[in-house]
Amino acid sequence: MNTYKAPLKDMQFVLFNVLNAEQLYGDLKFDNTERELLDAILQEAANFAENVLAPINSSGDAEGCHFDKDTGTVRTPAGFKQAYSQFVESGWSGLTASDALGGQGMPESLACVFKEMIDAACLSWGNYPLLSHGAVEALKHHGNAWQQNVFLKPIIQGNWTGTMCLTEPHCGSDLALLKSRAVPNADGSYAVTGTKIFITGGEHDLTENIIHLVLARLPDAPAGVKGISLFIVPKINVNEDGSLEQANSVRCGSIEHKMGIHASATCVMNFDQAKGYLIGEPNRGLNAMFTMMNSARIAVGLQGLGLMDRAYQNALAYSKDRLQSRALGGAKFPEKAADPLIVHPDIRRMLLTCKALTEGARCLAYQATLQIDKADRAQSAQDKAEAEMFLGFLTPIVKAALTEWANECAYHALQCFGGHGYVQEWGMEQLARDARITTIYEGTTQIQALDLLGRKTLHSQGAGLKQFIGQINAFCQKHPESEFCPQLQRAAALWSDVTAEVADNVSNDPETLGASSYDYLFLSAYVCLAYWWAEMAQAAQSSSDAALATSKTETARFYFSRILPRATQHASTLRSGSSTLMALDSELF
Amino acid sequence: MNTYKAPLKDMQFVLFNVLNAEQLYGDLKFDNTERELLDAILQEAANFAENVLAPINSSGDAEGCHFDKDTGTVRTPAGFKQAYSQFVESGWSGLTASDALGGQGMPESLACVFKEMIDAACLSWGNYPLLSHGAVEALKHHGNAWQQNVFLKPIIQGNWTGTMCLTEPHCGSDLALLKSRAVPNADGSYAVTGTKIFITGGEHDLTENIIHLVLARLPDAPAGVKGISLFIVPKINVNEDGSLEQANSVRCGSIEHKMGIHASATCVMNFDQAKGYLIGEPNRGLNAMFTMMNSARIAVGLQGLGLMDRAYQNALAYSKDRLQSRALGGAKFPEKAADPLIVHPDIRRMLLTCKALTEGARCLAYQATLQIDKADRAQSAQDKAEAEMFLGFLTPIVKAALTEWANECAYHALQCFGGHGYVQEWGMEQLARDARITTIYEGTTQIQALDLLGRKTLHSQGAGLKQFIGQINAFCQKHPESEFCPQLQRAAALWSDVTAEVADNVSNDPETLGASSYDYLFLSAYVCLAYWWAEMAQAAQSSSDAALATSKTETARFYFSRILPRATQHASTLRSGSSTLMALDSELF
Repeated sequence: MNTYKAPLKDMQFVLFNVLNAEQLYGDLKFDNTERELLDAILQEAANFAENVLAPINSSGDAEGCHFDKDTGTVRTPAGFKQAYSQFVESGWSGLTASDALGGQGMPESLACVFKEMIDAACLSWGNYPLLSHGAVEALKHHGNAWQQNVFLKPIIQGNWTGTMCLTEPHCGSDLALLKSRAVPNADGSYAVTGTKIFITGGEHDLTENIIHLVLARLPDAPAGVKGISLFIVPKINVNEDGSLEQANSVRCGSIEHKMGIHASATCVMNFDQAKGYLIGEPNRGLNAMFTMMNSARIAVGLQGLGLMDRAYQNALAYSKDRLQSRALGGAKFPEKAADPLIVHPDIRRMLLTCKALTEGARCLAYQATLQIDKADRAQSAQDKAEAEMFLGFLTPIVKAALTEWANECAYHALQCFGGHGYVQEWGMEQLARDARITTIYEGTTQIQALDLLGRKTLHSQGAGLKQFIGQINAFCQKHPESEFCPQLQRAAALWSDVTAEVADNVSNDPETLGASSYDYLFLSAYVCLAYWWAEMAQAAQSSSDAALATSKTETARFYFSRILPRATQHASTLRSGSSTLMALDSELF
Repeated sequence: MNTYKAPLKDMQFVLFNVLNAEQLYGDLKFDNTERELLDAILQEAANFAENVLAPINSSGDAEGCHFDKDTGTVRTPAGFKQAYSQFVESGWSGLTASDALGGQGMPESLACVFKEMIDAACLSWGNYPLLSHGAVEALKHHGNAWQQNVFLKPIIQGNWTGTMCLTEPHCGSDLALLKSRAVPNADGSYAVTGTKIFITGGEHDLTENIIHLVLARLPDAPAGVKGISLFIVPKINVNEDGSLEQANSVRCGSIEHKMGIHASATCVMNFDQAKGYLIGEPNRGLNAMFTMMNSARIAVGLQGLGLMDRAYQNALAYSKDRLQSRALGGAKFPEKAADPLIVHPDIRRMLLTCKALTEGARCLAYQATLQIDKADRAQSAQDKAEAEMFLGFLTPIVKAALTEWANECAYHALQCFGGHGYVQEWGMEQLARDARITTIYEGTTQIQALDLLGRKTLHSQGAGLKQFIGQINAFCQKHPESEFCPQLQRAAALWSDVTAEVADNVSNDPETLGASSYDYLFLSAYVCLAYWWAEMAQAAQSSSDAALATSKTETARFYFSRILPRATQHASTLRSGSSTLMALDSELF
């Protein structure tokens, strides 16, 4: 009963009317990125998401993955392997890779629109190619020629998948505690030993090989995070020419029984002197891993976006259809037995909250993904550094805010269904269960918040903040007539002021960073969305689509009057300081 | 891995130190309510919850209920029937019923403390006796002598259970659409026909009979809610003397597959000319049903409270135990490999939010349940009316706020566990799944909000509001030295002002009621909790327990600086009016 239709019209509006992606692609000298071709690709992507993935979402949840402990193998639910084959056969896997690596050279930001569709259609399935993308990034940036030839190409082609093996039973967010070790073999490879947990796609039946990227310590490594190296550990060993050899001593020990994403295998992986190859510099593994993690964090933000949209579109359809009570101001549909839910103000509050967050988040997410293309194809070192800086700034906001909002939207959307939201048949409860992981994996909201306020703001002299505020000022100078400018400029000033205050306070009280980071991230996110709503309203009013102009303008008004005040709330909570958080002794809780 | 220990110390503090329940019980002329006996009962209740119910919570979730479609019967998970037998054998079922009805005559408010423990220990199991309680209330107030003798007594003894059969496939919140019908039989009984859905405990194997209280229309009934009557329809028919006869034509058609409360059977019930007895006046069924619903609403609020506490206590234990990263201000436990989670400010934010909401909610909930006793045993009609009025006012706040907070606390608590929160083994995800129903059943949050602002405030000239604000003023007069009074009085003034504004606006714009109700309810709830935190801090400071005084005072400070500002937020959103909610045409969403 739960459906997904890719919101192509809004995706195209954001990408082309709001963000001028076609122009940017031209400036970045992409080939074949004229609008007509891009639209055709998005339409094909929508067909794949709607017709291949959406139908296996609910059945995959009900069936889950099957683990055979005798063989240590995982079988994915019915339809998953076929969908993956179709994905590979249609060439989606290499959409953004360069020609030299066998890809089609399309922009990453375009693939990210597809990614939103994939995750909305079937989040669990989307996790298998997702981790490959991270492995591709790590191999592309840190792998040597042989590693790229032997491991990178088959992953790009989709014939193999990749994983990220970070977490161990005793360490999740704190990699300093990592224990896995790697001992050099005589042939220049390494024997990798250790147990990794929560490994998404660590074992499955979609491809013949799986390439694990594993963090471990060399024998002489210093303690802490500066003694961690990254290794390529294939499930099936490979010969010099990349052909498959015997199985490596890597084994899936079990899979987790989880709240949601039942069809995404979350594995305990045991490495027992498994053959591995050092990638990048010794003891610089975290550096290489961050390449994967940043890519994966944007990807998880897009998961949040996809779930927000799916939750919203299903709640909207139900609220228009379900008849329940009369509008308080008198019957709106007197010919029906009752009015549809959507006449009721509090249903509208929930729907408009979902709409305002989802469409605003789409702008913010796509803005971030465009920085990936800018960084990849910058014409100068300065342009590249600037795009990387801005991407780094936006990444924790996209990851944390879009995943928290996914949970919020799934919550509202389920509520619109009343009792039907709680039963499996309608699919809303699956969305809520699936969404719940997104604020946790690839760095919790708490980790993202520390990253934004610490590394990406205070340690970077607010470079990203200044760039974003520069955009806001430019908008208000260009469109002084916009009804949203006064509030937008006040919000931007608040954001700046709070940043300066935190920077001052953190030197006196080191707890200020941790005590402020969560509120700071959400203050930032709500100001960012305010800017995008002002831009969207402006772009819609400039278009020839009167219905779109009304819809965007009214939703922007809703955002400014009912959502943006959350920014003020976060600012005032932040300003209340760290003392109320830190005063109570742990033993007195 | 998920445990429950009844927070007896805090329960007793709230009941006796903050709310002076022992004194009140004496004033209300309860027998046997000296403190020592009450403490002994609470200790026994805790033993039952911790040792009988808590152990079947996770296994009950995993196993779920079994439906046999050939016989239309439901088997509850392993241990449920035994736990129910123990409950009945120990006399818990009749704890609050009068001596004349075979009960023990204890206060309802005491049973509600037990109810909190039951729901925290095993929410699904708690639903079976919960609905009996509603049936008891309806039969007690509206049943005739024969009905009370034949149906009420076995329910009080726990030998039979009761249900509430309201919802039909096409109508949930809107009972005006109800279609089930009842045709008089020659013997004075009725033939009841219709399909009811979402019937909690509609079928199970815990007792030999189930007494359904069913809303249906008489043949000559007017349309809408003024044509609904209430009927007693037993699963097994009874003879004049109450002995069991043959099965009635009532059959469970299926059970729902739900997000959570898997061990609570949610049934589709088919009545096919089933023998029923009119209870109360014809066409006044809604009136009788409200007796049940109010009792059930408080009960669901207590479910919220129980879940809040369980979520909090497990997250707290994990956060003290799990080592992850160092405090930003330097190692707090340098002898350990890392510091425990609880040193990190944002973990503290989540834990303190849970603690502040849970302990504050406990005061509010217990205050409401004390009104039940006051109403039941009032010495004058005026006292009775006042207690009923105040109970009616507090009920939607307790139901809506405590269940929404249960979801919030389960969310924070799960997040504290990181990836472990998402796997079944740790039990946090079950809490989150179970909690999600509580904002829906027995009237959604939206319905509660309309009830509070409409019936319980605007249509009652703000009687409940005035009484609550009177309490606040009395506190501040008595304790002018309390550091919390200035903020508390501003919050109370805001609450009053907003109420007056809404009352003004609603006459000009009927949508104001629906557009304001959600924010109004939460504004009210946060002001209520501010009052209770001021009272708790005061009571703790007056006690001889220095640790308690520190804990309550610091948590009150946290509440006032970091939670109470939500009230201001709700007020300002409410004041933004209905236009941004209502402007967008349904077709332009």
